[in-house]
Amino acid sequence: MARVAVDAMGGDRAPEEIVAGALEAAKSGIDVTLHGPSRLDTYGLELVVAETVIGMSEKPAEAVRAKPGSSLVSACRAVASGEADAVVSAGNTGAMLAAGLLEIRRLPGVQRPAIAVPIPTRGGPSLLIDGGANADSRPEHLLQFAVMGSVFCAEILGNPKPSVRLLSIGEEPEKGDQLTIEAHALLRESTAIDFQGNAEARDLLRGAADVVVTDGFTGNMALKLMEGTIKELLDLLREEITATTTGKLGGLLIRPAARRIRARLDPDTYGGAYLLGLRGLSVISHGNSGRRAIANAIQLAARGADHRIVDRLSESLPGRAPRGEAPVGAPDVH
Amino acid sequence: MARVAVDAMGGDRAPEEIVAGALEAAKSGIDVTLHGPSRLDTYGLELVVAETVIGMSEKPAEAVRAKPGSSLVSACRAVASGEADAVVSAGNTGAMLAAGLLEIRRLPGVQRPAIAVPIPTRGGPSLLIDGGANADSRPEHLLQFAVMGSVFCAEILGNPKPSVRLLSIGEEPEKGDQLTIEAHALLRESTAIDFQGNAEARDLLRGAADVVVTDGFTGNMALKLMEGTIKELLDLLREEITATTTGKLGGLLIRPAARRIRARLDPDTYGGAYLLGLRGLSVISHGNSGRRAIANAIQLAARGADHRIVDRLSESLPGRAPRGEAPVGAPDVH
Repeated sequence: MARVAVDAMGGDRAPEEIVAGALEAAKSGIDVTLHGPSRLDTYGLELVVAETVIGMSEKPAEAVRAKPGSSLVSACRAVASGEADAVVSAGNTGAMLAAGLLEIRRLPGVQRPAIAVPIPTRGGPSLLIDGGANADSRPEHLLQFAVMGSVFCAEILGNPKPSVRLLSIGEEPEKGDQLTIEAHALLRESTAIDFQGNAEARDLLRGAADVVVTDGFTGNMALKLMEGTIKELLDLLREEITATTTGKLGGLLIRPAARRIRARLDPDTYGGAYLLGLRGLSVISHGNSGRRAIANAIQLAARGADHRIVDRLSESLPGRAPRGEAPVGAPDVH
Repeated sequence: MARVAVDAMGGDRAPEEIVAGALEAAKSGIDVTLHGPSRLDTYGLELVVAETVIGMSEKPAEAVRAKPGSSLVSACRAVASGEADAVVSAGNTGAMLAAGLLEIRRLPGVQRPAIAVPIPTRGGPSLLIDGGANADSRPEHLLQFAVMGSVFCAEILGNPKPSVRLLSIGEEPEKGDQLTIEAHALLRESTAIDFQGNAEARDLLRGAADVVVTDGFTGNMALKLMEGTIKELLDLLREEITATTTGKLGGLLIRPAARRIRARLDPDTYGGAYLLGLRGLSVISHGNSGRRAIANAIQLAARGADHRIVDRLSESLPGRAPRGEAPVGAPDVH
């Protein structure tokens, strides 16, 4: 049975919504452990007491160092010690990254862990990797991201032969910046993935590929730009529709359609972002996650544990060593 | 009187819509010259005969070299020879870039010409620079882009003290990739611009600043991503609205609101993208430009000529030399 450690105090709606999501996931047979203050022992879930909390705006590395007893660090430590297979938190993203590197540590052979973010598109999820774990990357990192993303798609999203594309500014292999052009050549040569060439940004929300590979700067930018563009367009639409009486009536009539679109584009379906390349699965849910997002995150994390995704990632990357050995290189935050 | 050379054969709707836009601009007192086949001499506009055409999908540098007599190259040459102050084309973007560098040439002191793209936002235009002229950039290039963008805003968009922000993945100066972090430091020290820190991608369509500076890879990606996201969202909306009878009725009632949004977000308002840093102004209109976009492009180009934008750009950049001198460095395509 998959064991998932949940940071009960992470996120804007903690602990109520987090606990509710954890309870829902526990009902489906997942071994969920809460990490949080002792007052949370009334819910019937296993509790590891962690009295301090890392705030959403605290400086990540400093906060992780200063608060080893926080719910976030405690949940990560449960994975590090082998008590849990995966950790879920809707708390401070940077702190999750830092705690993941510091406590859970990199898998042997992984140069840079990366954030994988499932984007809901009309054809199903499209996995963007790296969503922002690394601001600067080298071509060989992008190749590893592609391999890790493909394993994630196969094991967690249930897509056995995911297509991979490289995000660039044109479909031709020679289009792009130096990093992208060199990464394209590496990806093309790889037999570990089903590489189908470059993807254009304009196709991202349409579902350019099962796995879309990019560096963390571009990936993070793209995610925030899509989010902001969708929000601004819907705001404009609301403004213009409510500006006239006829518009308001029309707005009422299209409300179910608007609701269906929101459901189709709902990132909560996939629970958040997945930090891949550590010795355990780490899920970073949105700061405003409600019970549904948390339950989905826990379920996907459990699925990853059941499918032994960490072993699969380890096997698929070069320079691997058995789990439990010393890491090949300590991360910078150590 | 501003003299503008127009590539009559560039774009998907050439020559009809291009000529119509040129006629409209000419009525407002601009000295417009068409470059195209002799059959276009029936419109009462001055015509420079250019019988060949560069196709939208031809390889840019090769096409420019192979077709010196094409309408696109001919129009650029008119600026190079001093017969025109600016050139407007809705043709092959890459070919315009190549012909601009080859024929019009860089301004002394300009390291890299850049593409400035006005993004329509609720607070007025927000100028993104570089929109894709350079795939790889150095921090000092980004500083020049910021200066050129500010001059463009002041002289062409009529905004005397434009705010400048640097596109990054966080507002803090230390957020971003190496290029962005170093560029931030340069921009902060510059007295030539009103730098207000980093902009987040999620604010781009809301109007993050008057001038948003970024490298051409990120800028091109961001433009295409916004375009694709808006299109996909509107497509989804149409699909969901027309899926039910009630929805269809609502759709009819909100049609005027949808039209107003389209007008607010219409890129044709600004005629296209502006290639800055050459010894003449070069405007690259959308491939599907209609008469309105072309007329606006010609009018904005004429405004740039009236305001002597090339001199202003030259004065605002270091290492300047009087116009007419040999260029400091020949562009790569020479």
